[in-house]
Amino acid sequence: MLSSLKRLLIGRPLKSNELGEQKLGILKALAILSSDALSSVAYGTEQILIVLATISVVAFWYSIPIAVGVLFLLAALILSYRQIIYSYPHGGGAYVVSKENIGEKAGLIAGGSLLVDYILTVAVSVTAGTDAITSAFPGLHAHSVFIACILVIFITILNLRGITESASILAYPVYLFVLALFILIGVGLFKIVTGDITPTAQHASIGAPVQGITLFLLLRAFASGCSALTGVEAISNAIPTFKDPAPKNAAKTLVLMGSLLALLFSGITFLAYYYGIAPKADETVVSQIAKETFGRNYLYFFVQGTTALILVLAANTGYSAFPLLAFALAKDKYMPRMFTIRGDRLGYSNGIVSLGVASIILIIASKGQTEHLIPLYAVGVFIPFTLSQTGMIIKWLRQKPAGWVAKLTSNLIGALITLTVLIIFFVTKLGQVWFVFLFLPLIVIMFLRIKSHYEAVGEQLRIQPEDEAIPVQGNVIIVPVAGITKVVENSINYAKSLTDQIFAVYVSFDREDEKRFEEKWQKWQPDVRLVTLQSHYRSILQPLSKFIDTVEHKASENNYRVTVLIPQFITKKNWHNILHNQSSLLIRAYLIFKKKVIVATLPYHFKK
Amino acid sequence: MLSSLKRLLIGRPLKSNELGEQKLGILKALAILSSDALSSVAYGTEQILIVLATISVVAFWYSIPIAVGVLFLLAALILSYRQIIYSYPHGGGAYVVSKENIGEKAGLIAGGSLLVDYILTVAVSVTAGTDAITSAFPGLHAHSVFIACILVIFITILNLRGITESASILAYPVYLFVLALFILIGVGLFKIVTGDITPTAQHASIGAPVQGITLFLLLRAFASGCSALTGVEAISNAIPTFKDPAPKNAAKTLVLMGSLLALLFSGITFLAYYYGIAPKADETVVSQIAKETFGRNYLYFFVQGTTALILVLAANTGYSAFPLLAFALAKDKYMPRMFTIRGDRLGYSNGIVSLGVASIILIIASKGQTEHLIPLYAVGVFIPFTLSQTGMIIKWLRQKPAGWVAKLTSNLIGALITLTVLIIFFVTKLGQVWFVFLFLPLIVIMFLRIKSHYEAVGEQLRIQPEDEAIPVQGNVIIVPVAGITKVVENSINYAKSLTDQIFAVYVSFDREDEKRFEEKWQKWQPDVRLVTLQSHYRSILQPLSKFIDTVEHKASENNYRVTVLIPQFITKKNWHNILHNQSSLLIRAYLIFKKKVIVATLPYHFKK
Repeated sequence: MLSSLKRLLIGRPLKSNELGEQKLGILKALAILSSDALSSVAYGTEQILIVLATISVVAFWYSIPIAVGVLFLLAALILSYRQIIYSYPHGGGAYVVSKENIGEKAGLIAGGSLLVDYILTVAVSVTAGTDAITSAFPGLHAHSVFIACILVIFITILNLRGITESASILAYPVYLFVLALFILIGVGLFKIVTGDITPTAQHASIGAPVQGITLFLLLRAFASGCSALTGVEAISNAIPTFKDPAPKNAAKTLVLMGSLLALLFSGITFLAYYYGIAPKADETVVSQIAKETFGRNYLYFFVQGTTALILVLAANTGYSAFPLLAFALAKDKYMPRMFTIRGDRLGYSNGIVSLGVASIILIIASKGQTEHLIPLYAVGVFIPFTLSQTGMIIKWLRQKPAGWVAKLTSNLIGALITLTVLIIFFVTKLGQVWFVFLFLPLIVIMFLRIKSHYEAVGEQLRIQPEDEAIPVQGNVIIVPVAGITKVVENSINYAKSLTDQIFAVYVSFDREDEKRFEEKWQKWQPDVRLVTLQSHYRSILQPLSKFIDTVEHKASENNYRVTVLIPQFITKKNWHNILHNQSSLLIRAYLIFKKKVIVATLPYHFKK
Repeated sequence: MLSSLKRLLIGRPLKSNELGEQKLGILKALAILSSDALSSVAYGTEQILIVLATISVVAFWYSIPIAVGVLFLLAALILSYRQIIYSYPHGGGAYVVSKENIGEKAGLIAGGSLLVDYILTVAVSVTAGTDAITSAFPGLHAHSVFIACILVIFITILNLRGITESASILAYPVYLFVLALFILIGVGLFKIVTGDITPTAQHASIGAPVQGITLFLLLRAFASGCSALTGVEAISNAIPTFKDPAPKNAAKTLVLMGSLLALLFSGITFLAYYYGIAPKADETVVSQIAKETFGRNYLYFFVQGTTALILVLAANTGYSAFPLLAFALAKDKYMPRMFTIRGDRLGYSNGIVSLGVASIILIIASKGQTEHLIPLYAVGVFIPFTLSQTGMIIKWLRQKPAGWVAKLTSNLIGALITLTVLIIFFVTKLGQVWFVFLFLPLIVIMFLRIKSHYEAVGEQLRIQPEDEAIPVQGNVIIVPVAGITKVVENSINYAKSLTDQIFAVYVSFDREDEKRFEEKWQKWQPDVRLVTLQSHYRSILQPLSKFIDTVEHKASENNYRVTVLIPQFITKKNWHNILHNQSSLLIRAYLIFKKKVIVATLPYHFKK
């Protein structure tokens, strides 16, 4: 039942050699890996304007130079990541780059902040998308947490189905969103050029003097604008999922994504400035631009609808990146081994499911109010940005390949800019991001402890040439018996076929019963030793455990192995199980975990 | 941790031979077993008056003859149950008496309705007591379900501590309640005799003509009054918990309880009649009588307080009777065997816990509104009353011991009266009790199906002289291996010590890996056969399961046994467990339940 439900939701299992078919072309990769970055356009400009609005509307012209700054930063990031892609064709996220070039801990800091960041991506994007939906249908507002959780579950299932099939569904909204914004910007610019527009508010001309503007405020506005750059790193983590030649395709996708992002971001920012749009609490900047350009007609709803969709789908970036990063960390033993296993549909199911569960917990814990998580989220991106650029610098300095000066320069610029942005974040928004100082050390400690456990295990499992194993000299089998039945007969026969050192153990609660049983046993199995144990507290486990200890102690001196043989009733119908004391299960678990004996389970299948 | 918490709540385990000390004397037994019956006084009179009030206050004089009828019924029940106690000294509840004399199904109907009834006792009594508490402290009213559940948990823990200790705590409220009502009745009668009382309302004299009175109504009032008799059967179920001579002590306790009940019930009914008290929605009859007699002084609160307490403690009757009845049913294989096991403190813990859980579910499901369950509860008592009296009649007719005519007569009267009451119930309150016709057959079917399963099992386990077991000819051991490690070395050494028919099985996900492993194995263990299996779907279980089937098929032809040897890592710290794929657990469970192979678990304890 359960497995056919799983089949229905996830699809038939795929063979390992079907993996190649699942790989991504450029256009599909663009759809899957860039929805996070592109969706940032929906709020990037707005974040800048919100900060500037604290001075005056005259200050809005600063959005243009700030946007230029962001674009410059974007260009630097794209160039740097292009180099990372070619240098690390097997998937060079910030984790790999930092670990190899700077050191273990830098890698773990980058990896840890990215892991948390992907969870934040999912939670923040899905709740933002849900807000867009509930704004359109206010009746649903009370259920927004529930809707967000359903969306996360839906995306999780899509991802469990496998990469390509998810892509087919997820590609269209991204294309439509890009199309919608191009139409919006195109029509807007056309109307401006033809003078066919009368903005409701007038824009201040660029360079107009602004009362009370400070560097701190401009930096804060810039930092806010940088939230438009989250998601840029996704492609460099995901190179192994590209079609061959993977690095080349990945680099092309990256440049394509960067160009789209730049065009859309500058278009929206320019229109917002030219229309003199101020951020409002109850309407997004993009919505205002679209209304100004089209009026509230079907094109307006097209823009709004695709925006809502792409916000929800931005979550999908997390689903592409998180399992791959978890795989990389798990392969290096910093995370549980289960993250290295491919599921039925060849995705890393454990990573996908963990991400889904973690983001649902985050959504429920924050009651769907994830806005205040956005700065945390941006910081979580810029830490690995900075670390990976720094790693590349060290790499070029060490290896000095042909043309290394140019490469070094581009990464140096990248590192300096991202470091600056990071410092700006900590200086201007400390109250919202201090939490990073708490959880990053914790997560790194966890990684290190996991690794040290795996290493200790590996050490213990390795066969050393010097300590030759002493062959087992013989076997003692202990058979707890509860009566004279077919099950006991089976057990004794099995034990007899393995060794002649057999103890049948009977636990009795009173003397009379003990005597009676001893006599019956003597008649039935005179050649098998019967040991009877008294239990004053009506517990079977306690006297049995004591007896096993005694036998085990003596056996190990002679290098004998002790096996405890426990029968298990297998009932015909499930409900019958509650009719049998499940003491054998308890005894088995106790013996396996507490004693150094082998526990053999002999099944007895009931026929009715 | 968990076990020390248990120790704290329940107390240290008791030895089986401490059982004698736990047995009950007459006074303690009275406290434990009669709180249900005695607490009925708190509402018996009121139930009669509520029905009579639908005609007119003049009709209230009928409460006197109706009370006489109830007392007559009580006397008949006490006499009949005294005979049952002597005839069934090992605990003759309605279940035993009906089963032995009428037949299996009659016994099961009696047993089933009593079981359900005890759950109702707990739920109804505790919520009634809670209502008394929340009437005194209205602020708590919103939390009444929660309070009721806490009370049930409290009583459950007391009972898990063991009978005698519970009795010490539970005895005082019963004594105090009896004392309080005696003071109330004594002072009331004294004031009436001395003429020191002016009732607020005048009472109609007995025999005054009443307009519109019908037989139906009088019967209904009588049936309602019979709710004062619930709990009378508790003692006859609990004879084995009495001190020796158990039947004599039980009979004495029964008569003592009957006398107390008769005195209190007639006293309260008479005072209610003489004071001309009418039932009110917001104040109980007992409360009105106490106010009339004492005014609202400390004696009034003493009466009210002990009434509330005894209502809560009436629940305890259920706790004494339910586990014993469940034990009797389980011993006869109509209920799961676990109800026959004494816990650490010698109580039948499984019965106690089941009762607690079931009544909490009932309280939560009915949201603490259990008043409408009272008629159902009364019917649940009168069905076994009738059946056990009928059983006794059949017994006397069959055995005809000395003085059987007198005995027969007393039981015949008992049977006729209880049958009449039952018919009155069904005729006058069908809408509230029809549910009985649904659940009684269901519960009886459940009992029968459980029994038939246990009998089938017994049949299958019995060793038949004709089918001699063929001795096991030899053993095949299958060792799934995941690499060349110490664990595998251990497993192979163990297997070698048992047989020379060993298959090491390696599941590989690709050809290259397979070849590499085969070569390594050849060097390491050239004398152990290695079987490599290809898994296209990355599942270990599937190919392994297929291979086991093949081996098992061949082995069983030659009467060989197949053992699968699975290593189990035992980690030093609990959290380490999540770092190891728990596939061995899954594989083990699958093999035990689905295959006819012995599964041996070889523990490997990590040292760090």
